[in-house]
Amino acid sequence: MPLAPSATTVLAALRNVPAFAHGLVRDLRVRWALEEIGRSYRVELHDAMAPRGPDYRSWQPFGQIPALDDGRVRLFESGAILLHLGEQDERLLPREPQARADTYAWLIAALNTVEPPIMDLQRVDVFRANEPWTREARPGYVHFLQRRLNHVEQALGDREWFAGPFSIADIAMVTVLREVRHTDILDAYPKLTAYKQRGEARATFRQALADQALGLGEPARLPEPA
Amino acid sequence: MPLAPSATTVLAALRNVPAFAHGLVRDLRVRWALEEIGRSYRVELHDAMAPRGPDYRSWQPFGQIPALDDGRVRLFESGAILLHLGEQDERLLPREPQARADTYAWLIAALNTVEPPIMDLQRVDVFRANEPWTREARPGYVHFLQRRLNHVEQALGDREWFAGPFSIADIAMVTVLREVRHTDILDAYPKLTAYKQRGEARATFRQALADQALGLGEPARLPEPA
Repeated sequence: MPLAPSATTVLAALRNVPAFAHGLVRDLRVRWALEEIGRSYRVELHDAMAPRGPDYRSWQPFGQIPALDDGRVRLFESGAILLHLGEQDERLLPREPQARADTYAWLIAALNTVEPPIMDLQRVDVFRANEPWTREARPGYVHFLQRRLNHVEQALGDREWFAGPFSIADIAMVTVLREVRHTDILDAYPKLTAYKQRGEARATFRQALADQALGLGEPARLPEPA
Repeated sequence: MPLAPSATTVLAALRNVPAFAHGLVRDLRVRWALEEIGRSYRVELHDAMAPRGPDYRSWQPFGQIPALDDGRVRLFESGAILLHLGEQDERLLPREPQARADTYAWLIAALNTVEPPIMDLQRVDVFRANEPWTREARPGYVHFLQRRLNHVEQALGDREWFAGPFSIADIAMVTVLREVRHTDILDAYPKLTAYKQRGEARATFRQALADQALGLGEPARLPEPA
């Protein structure tokens, strides 16, 4: 249970988000990584609706969540924090050269090749759903995402995790795949669906999700495994 | 001049791309990094229009460019290749802890926070410009990108490079900022414009760009500095 009020590692998170975003805000990635290595941390909770001032923007220039201060360095971008933590612990970033390269490849693929078309779909389906153009645009966005997922499904094949051992690539990819939960698109990909469920079934993920919900003022109970 | 026919490091690139993409294909990032550390490489040129077979997809699962084989490991995603090379040379990834964290943060910010809205705009302006919805959608995409660029401009401030010394974060950010060249959006950001020009003025960048053009069958002459 790495949440500890006196920890020197501080994670910026949110205390309130719309129902749509519950369990999706990206501090979850960092919490999960910290659970995997048993590193204690405390949270600094921000109001999702309040503007972030210059102090926070000197830490996170886009005003987004998350940001990390580990008592030694400060940084932002969940993917960057995963790299920073991975560098310190081979349970997150394997030392064997090809597994390490695969971790980099799939971490970046999750963030730069798979997540952007999912964000495009979220925009069309949720954030701008009331704009008329989204109805015409949606099929193209869905098709583009499906092509990407076809490649990911095929590349995963029968592997348990993308780089051999579990790694930050899986923390990124599992949390990215969760972002399409408002649709049934993932159902067409049995390997990716099972992979996502494997990730969500880890005790570390469940603890991270429960602690994120706790920060949001929800009861601190562990979700059932998938 | 790291291009060398007998090099053990192999970079997958393209031999033909539409004019729109000249100087934008992402093997440029890897060439630039290799120039910065003086590492010899040779290219394996692919036809942009031909489907990539299973051999290539076992190297690059999405069938995209670039992919790298350094004789020891194979990997894909330009951002991942930058991390892989950076790990081996502090001229690409500083060793000082805060500078290293800043490099991770701005590398990922370039790829996950700045590039996606630029890709969205490219889609609306170029790849799907003939679809009627794009006219209605465009102002929202422009506005979203401008907000992001405001933050990047402010964060850069008077720094020369994002992490202190030049790093892979700058290779990513400069090449990402080039992707909006079909518009005049960047003109409103004097610091980012000067920053992009500083990157493009490096001899290493100019050599990388010239060698990429050479692979495309263009004359091998260095572009003028900006």
